[in-house]
Amino acid sequence: MDERLEKQLNFILEIDQEKNIFRQTYLSGHKRQENDAEHAWHMAIMAYLLKEYANETIDVAKVMLMCLIHDIVEIEAGDTYAYDTENLKTQKAREDAAKEKIYALLPKDQQQELIALFDEFEAYETAEAKFAHVMDNLQPILLNNSNGGSDWKDHQVTAQQVYERQTKTKLGSTKLFNVIDQILQEHIESGNLL
Amino acid sequence: MDERLEKQLNFILEIDQEKNIFRQTYLSGHKRQENDAEHAWHMAIMAYLLKEYANETIDVAKVMLMCLIHDIVEIEAGDTYAYDTENLKTQKAREDAAKEKIYALLPKDQQQELIALFDEFEAYETAEAKFAHVMDNLQPILLNNSNGGSDWKDHQVTAQQVYERQTKTKLGSTKLFNVIDQILQEHIESGNLL
Repeated sequence: MDERLEKQLNFILEIDQEKNIFRQTYLSGHKRQENDAEHAWHMAIMAYLLKEYANETIDVAKVMLMCLIHDIVEIEAGDTYAYDTENLKTQKAREDAAKEKIYALLPKDQQQELIALFDEFEAYETAEAKFAHVMDNLQPILLNNSNGGSDWKDHQVTAQQVYERQTKTKLGSTKLFNVIDQILQEHIESGNLL
Repeated sequence: MDERLEKQLNFILEIDQEKNIFRQTYLSGHKRQENDAEHAWHMAIMAYLLKEYANETIDVAKVMLMCLIHDIVEIEAGDTYAYDTENLKTQKAREDAAKEKIYALLPKDQQQELIALFDEFEAYETAEAKFAHVMDNLQPILLNNSNGGSDWKDHQVTAQQVYERQTKTKLGSTKLFNVIDQILQEHIESGNLL
């Protein structure tokens, strides 16, 4: 087998580990926590189905790929819960080190391409990055909403914290931010969200 | 919330169930079986990274979406193991009924679009369908290979059965069929594959 293909297959086997990185979000039905690969799969399909609600014109294929790869760094860096103030401080440094290590398994051109795509997601500036973040923010809220807001209750998350996390969501999609806002208001009223 | 968006969000919540459909393939490291959502996520990234090995020119975004949705019907129809001769007989009828039910949750235009994409995958005729099937066939072999061929040993699968399953793989990618062939030959030699 030639070296290029061997590198690609090694990377493909390495990212299988993303299925072992568990998030704080529970699947709908609350049987178990969701892992990063499942979350990314869900986000990519959502991006395709909800593309009409992006504020700006987007390259949806690019958004989907961004969604699929955005958590690969967590294989090395671990998942950082959205409301874990302590670990959020070190998140960027941990993920930057992780990205250099993991993507180095790929041939140089694909390494550069995927790191650039991950960096674009993190920078939160392009239309694609903003819409991918809408998916990253909306997806766990849909699951948590289906479970009566239990993830928030478990971690005693406040409405203020959730709204802070969602400040930039409306940059990607006003329409989908309104969906999130409606869900949050219902949970505040019913006391699930402090 | 308008009806169209409500339908889209209902479908998105429904497909969360795909994370509960477990396959016969074990994850690398053999801790547990893989589920359909993880498998689809892996296939979509593989399609992107390995697109240069497609025999024909492909629309890779279309292949990725095909990979992401190809097992949604299994939420209703269940997973059918590639070497389960009894359940393979009823697979098509079960999946056809499932697709009508699940995709009916979506607005009509998206329902028709995703059913057409699923049907295209199943028909195995277009360049995109052939390449998506290469991913569907290669992905579990990479995992199983990393686990010393344990999935084949567990189910006493023969080399003949595996090669029959792979007859059409070379239509999508001669290069990647050769990878599979090389892996199978190694497992035959070491006695993991009867």
